[in-house]
Amino acid sequence: MNFESYNPTKLIFGAGALSRLGEVASEYGKKALIVTGGGSVKRTGVFDRAVESLKSAGVAYAECAGVEPNPRISSVRRGVKAAREESCDMVIAIGGGSAMDASKVIAAGVLYDGDPWDLIGHGQANWVIPTQALPIITVPTMAATGSEMNEGAVISNEDSKIKSFVSATCLFPKVALADPELTVTLPKDQTAYGVCDIITHVTEGYFNGVDGTPIQDRFAEGVIINAIEWGRKAVADGNDLEARAQVQWASIVALNGWVQAGVHMLAPVHMIEHALSAHHDITHGAGLAIVNPAWMRFAAKVRPERFAQFAQRVFGLSPEGKDDMTLAMEGIDAFVEFLRSIGCPTRLSEVGIGDELFEQYAEDAKLVVHDGNGNLAGRPPLTKDDIVEILRSAL
Amino acid sequence: MNFESYNPTKLIFGAGALSRLGEVASEYGKKALIVTGGGSVKRTGVFDRAVESLKSAGVAYAECAGVEPNPRISSVRRGVKAAREESCDMVIAIGGGSAMDASKVIAAGVLYDGDPWDLIGHGQANWVIPTQALPIITVPTMAATGSEMNEGAVISNEDSKIKSFVSATCLFPKVALADPELTVTLPKDQTAYGVCDIITHVTEGYFNGVDGTPIQDRFAEGVIINAIEWGRKAVADGNDLEARAQVQWASIVALNGWVQAGVHMLAPVHMIEHALSAHHDITHGAGLAIVNPAWMRFAAKVRPERFAQFAQRVFGLSPEGKDDMTLAMEGIDAFVEFLRSIGCPTRLSEVGIGDELFEQYAEDAKLVVHDGNGNLAGRPPLTKDDIVEILRSAL
Repeated sequence: MNFESYNPTKLIFGAGALSRLGEVASEYGKKALIVTGGGSVKRTGVFDRAVESLKSAGVAYAECAGVEPNPRISSVRRGVKAAREESCDMVIAIGGGSAMDASKVIAAGVLYDGDPWDLIGHGQANWVIPTQALPIITVPTMAATGSEMNEGAVISNEDSKIKSFVSATCLFPKVALADPELTVTLPKDQTAYGVCDIITHVTEGYFNGVDGTPIQDRFAEGVIINAIEWGRKAVADGNDLEARAQVQWASIVALNGWVQAGVHMLAPVHMIEHALSAHHDITHGAGLAIVNPAWMRFAAKVRPERFAQFAQRVFGLSPEGKDDMTLAMEGIDAFVEFLRSIGCPTRLSEVGIGDELFEQYAEDAKLVVHDGNGNLAGRPPLTKDDIVEILRSAL
Repeated sequence: MNFESYNPTKLIFGAGALSRLGEVASEYGKKALIVTGGGSVKRTGVFDRAVESLKSAGVAYAECAGVEPNPRISSVRRGVKAAREESCDMVIAIGGGSAMDASKVIAAGVLYDGDPWDLIGHGQANWVIPTQALPIITVPTMAATGSEMNEGAVISNEDSKIKSFVSATCLFPKVALADPELTVTLPKDQTAYGVCDIITHVTEGYFNGVDGTPIQDRFAEGVIINAIEWGRKAVADGNDLEARAQVQWASIVALNGWVQAGVHMLAPVHMIEHALSAHHDITHGAGLAIVNPAWMRFAAKVRPERFAQFAQRVFGLSPEGKDDMTLAMEGIDAFVEFLRSIGCPTRLSEVGIGDELFEQYAEDAKLVVHDGNGNLAGRPPLTKDDIVEILRSAL
C-alpha cells in the first residue's frame, strides 16, 4: 500500500448535462477543436446541440471529424494541424473512446514540436511523455472506455500495425460531461462490447494488482456486479435510461483511478487485445470478450484462490464442497455465459481471426509493458509461448 | 443520478511518506504555518521529522500549536494572525481532524478580511463561503475524519456553544501526505473512536442519500466491512502496520467523495453529535458511537428494507424467515456489538451526559441543515421531538 492517487477532472454527470457544454467550455477559451468519430453524433443531433450550447456561450469551433474506431495516428496528425491552423484554445471530444483518445493526443500534440507518434509508447528508445496539453473536455456518447475521466489514450499506427498507449497527467480532461441520454441510441452490439470493456478494465486490476488491497477488491466487485446487472438491462432495452446511467457510471469508475488506487494495475489482456485489433479492425470490447476469459483460465492455474473469490463474490457461487480451482472455473464459465447472453463473441473464429499471426501478436503484445525478462507484465508474467497458448485456447 | 464530482487533492499514501513533506511543500512557497494539536506530534518525534524534511527542502516555518479537540474558532483566529505576521505562503496540518480542520479555515481566513467565524455556517443571514485559501497540505496522524482529502471543516464556537461546518472547493488540500506509520502510536480508545467516525461517514450517505445508487452502495459496504475487520485488528494491536494502513485508507475513502458520488448525502447523525460535543468535550467518534445506533433504530422504522440490506451485506446475516424489520434490528444489534467490542461507548450515560439539555441539542442540531419545514434534513427529516426521542433512547 504505497501509492499516489490524483484525478483533477471535474465530472458533471446526468441526463441533460450536454446543455452545459458552452458554459463549461467558455472557461477555457474562445475557440474549440471538436473531435468526433464516424458521424453518429451528427445523425443523432448531439453535435448540433453541442454547437448550439457553445455558440450561446460565445465559443467558436473548428472540426476534426471522422476519427475511426481504433483511432489512428494519422487522424491525430490531422487534428493537430487543424487546431494549429484554427488557433484553437481547447479540444472537445464528442463521441466514444476513439474520439476521446484522439482528442487527448491532439491536445498534447499541438504543444509538441515533433511527430505525435513520439508521444505513444511503441518500444522506441526515447518515449516523449507529454507534460503539457491544451485543455480537454470530453463528452462521451457511449459507456465503455472510461477515457472521459482519466489520463490515458490508446492510438494505432496504421503503417507499423502497432496499437499502443500513453498515460500522462496533462491528459486528464478538465471536465467530463457525461450525459447518459446521449448513449441511448447506441446499438445493442456496441452496448454489449462497452459492457465487456468496463468489466475488463476492472478485472485487469483485480487479477493483476498487488496483494493486500481488500477495499479496492470490494470496489471492483461492486462495479462488476452492477455492470453485469445493468448491462444486461441496457442491452435488452436501449431506451432504459436508468440502465444506461448505471452502465455509464460503471464505465467511469471502472477506470478513473478509484478502483485501482493502490492496486498497481497491470493490463496483459489489453496488451494482447491491442495486438489483435492493430491487425484486424475488430471492436476493442469484442476483442476483450475473446481474450479475457482465455487469459483467465490460464492465470487461474497460478492463483486459483483469487479466481475463486471472484466466482463467489461476483457470481454468488457457493464454495461448498469444491476446491478453489473448481470454483474458479465455474466463475469463469459464468462470466463467459454472461458475455454470450449479451451477444459478445468469445472465440477468435467468431470474428474471423485464425492462428496465422499468433507469433506476431505475441511479440507485439509485450512490446511496451514487459518485466525484466522481456515477458508481458502481469500475474503471471507471460512469455511469447504463454500468449500463443492463450490465443490458441480461444480459437 | 445527476451530480458533480471533483476532488483535485493529490494523495501520497504509504509508510515513510512523511519524508517527502519538504519536497512537496517546496512547490507551494518558502514558508509554512504548521498547525498542530495537543502536543503528541512533538512527543512522538513526528514534528521534528517534518521540520527536518522542510528544512532540507529550504522551507521555513512558523507554528500554530495547541489546537484543541473540537477545534475552536479562537484557535483559528490565532492561526490567521500568526500566518499573516509571519507571511506564510501555505498551511501544513500535522495531526488529527482538529488540526486539519483548523488549518483549512486558517488558510481561508488569511485571505478573508472579516472574522473567520463568518466562514462557518451557524444560521447567520450571510454565510460567507470562502472562494480562496492559501495552499493546504495535510499530514494526518490518525485515521478518522478523512479531512486530509476533502473540502470540509468543522469548527466550534466556545462562546455560543455552536459546532458547525464549512465546505468549499478552495479548502481541498493540494496534497494529502498519509503515512500510516504515524498512526501506530495512537491509543486504543482514540483508534476505536476513529473507526467509528469512519463507519459513520459512510452510513450517513448510505442511509441518507437518494435512491438508485447501487454502485455506491457496494463501495459503502466495502468500506464498512473493511473498517470493521481491520479496525478490530488495529485496536487489538496498535503496532499492526497492515491494519493501520487499511484503516487509514478506509478513513480517506470514507469521505473523499468517492463513496458519496451521486448520493447527495445528508448527515443528521453528525449534526446531532455536533450539538452534543459543542456542549460537552467528548471525542467526536465516541459521540457518534452513541448517536448513530439510536438514530438507526429510529430511521429503520421508515425504511426497514434499507437497514435489512445493511444487515445482510455488511454483517452477512441471513434474511431467511425474517421480515425486513427483524433483520434490520439484528444488523443494528451487530453494529452495536462491534462498537462495544472495540471499546466505544454506546449510551449517553457512559460519557456523563444527561437529559437536561436535550431540547437545546435538538434546536442546535437543526440550525444549519434543515429542510423546507425547519426539520433536520435526512431520511426521514427529524423534528425537534424526533431528535429528543432519539437522544432519550440513547440515555
